[in-house]
Amino acid sequence: MTETPMSNVHAAEPLPAPKTQRGERTRQKILDAAEREIGARGFSDASIATITAEAAVAQGTFYLYFRSKEEVLRELVLRMGRRLRHHLTRAVMDAPDRMEAERLGIRAFLQFVRDNPNLYRVVAESQFVDPAVHRAYYEEFAAGYSEGLRTAEARGEISPGNAEVRAWALMGVTDMVGRRFALYDPNGALDAAAEAAYDFVAHGMAPRAGKPGRRG
Amino acid sequence: MTETPMSNVHAAEPLPAPKTQRGERTRQKILDAAEREIGARGFSDASIATITAEAAVAQGTFYLYFRSKEEVLRELVLRMGRRLRHHLTRAVMDAPDRMEAERLGIRAFLQFVRDNPNLYRVVAESQFVDPAVHRAYYEEFAAGYSEGLRTAEARGEISPGNAEVRAWALMGVTDMVGRRFALYDPNGALDAAAEAAYDFVAHGMAPRAGKPGRRG
Repeated sequence: MTETPMSNVHAAEPLPAPKTQRGERTRQKILDAAEREIGARGFSDASIATITAEAAVAQGTFYLYFRSKEEVLRELVLRMGRRLRHHLTRAVMDAPDRMEAERLGIRAFLQFVRDNPNLYRVVAESQFVDPAVHRAYYEEFAAGYSEGLRTAEARGEISPGNAEVRAWALMGVTDMVGRRFALYDPNGALDAAAEAAYDFVAHGMAPRAGKPGRRG
Repeated sequence: MTETPMSNVHAAEPLPAPKTQRGERTRQKILDAAEREIGARGFSDASIATITAEAAVAQGTFYLYFRSKEEVLRELVLRMGRRLRHHLTRAVMDAPDRMEAERLGIRAFLQFVRDNPNLYRVVAESQFVDPAVHRAYYEEFAAGYSEGLRTAEARGEISPGNAEVRAWALMGVTDMVGRRFALYDPNGALDAAAEAAYDFVAHGMAPRAGKPGRRG
């Protein structure tokens, strides 16, 4: 890719944020266009030329805001993470306890996938472009999640358990159920899948005391 | 990539299997080299030249077995899937019931990730090269998993529930716990993470009857 001469500058700080609202709007417009382009064509086929054409800005304008296509992808992953966290925080803010927050959070995640079909692609592409950013995407979610679970355990809102393993397990549940029911199936109802996933998260699938199976 | 003129031939059947053991050994040698190359450099930087050099075969030999680098990646995903299924089937074959099979299966999956550090990369790369193969990788696992869960439910070995959602949820649990504890942390002990993941899968994390939390 001749357009990414600085692709080795992984550790470089992003360019300074625009000083004007107009500049910030242009920067977001480029990011929106890059998200669509990468979502549709993939990272290696998306080019700065196609991104700026899609954003309806001059190609030189790109370099006022980003050093490279790689830097755009990194910023897209960070932006996706912020948006998802914001979406989930709003969805669960009125939950009376942790399990109800999990129920609302699972449903909200599936909706986010439906509304942001480029989420999986953008995050997945980043693991090859910048493994550290990709890993941080998951680790930051897991760290916040683990802390919330520890607090909930101390309050007796969940059973005692390994908070870190549970955090990653919960991320896996929503990741894969989201893939199947919100991404692969873009039109199916989400409520039933969300409820079944919540039931799994709440109770697991071992036979339940007092509720024997048919031939248990 | 000038070396992949046939990359659009997604639906093409793979070339016929080698007729001799020697041919099959050469084919596997090329696949092994491709797995190492793609694992280390990624799909777009791995080339047929580097793969054949790594395999110590002439570049022309490659084309006796594969049409393109894309076809090699497809075959790697299928081979990973077969190996993983074989590994898990062996690990759980002596389990007396489904929940014990889950326990053994989770532990075995983490070990497989440890022993096959290219698993995640090969599977993830395939979603951009051939989305159908990538999706089939998960869907085939989920189909077999769902069927096993329905049988287990009929036998009373697990609680009643949505087998398909549970199958994807379980794949998510092992995928993310494997990422954190077997891939990101290549040396840590796996037993504790596997046991905690099993506990989550068996019992979920809602407060348990008769085991109230500290301040519940």
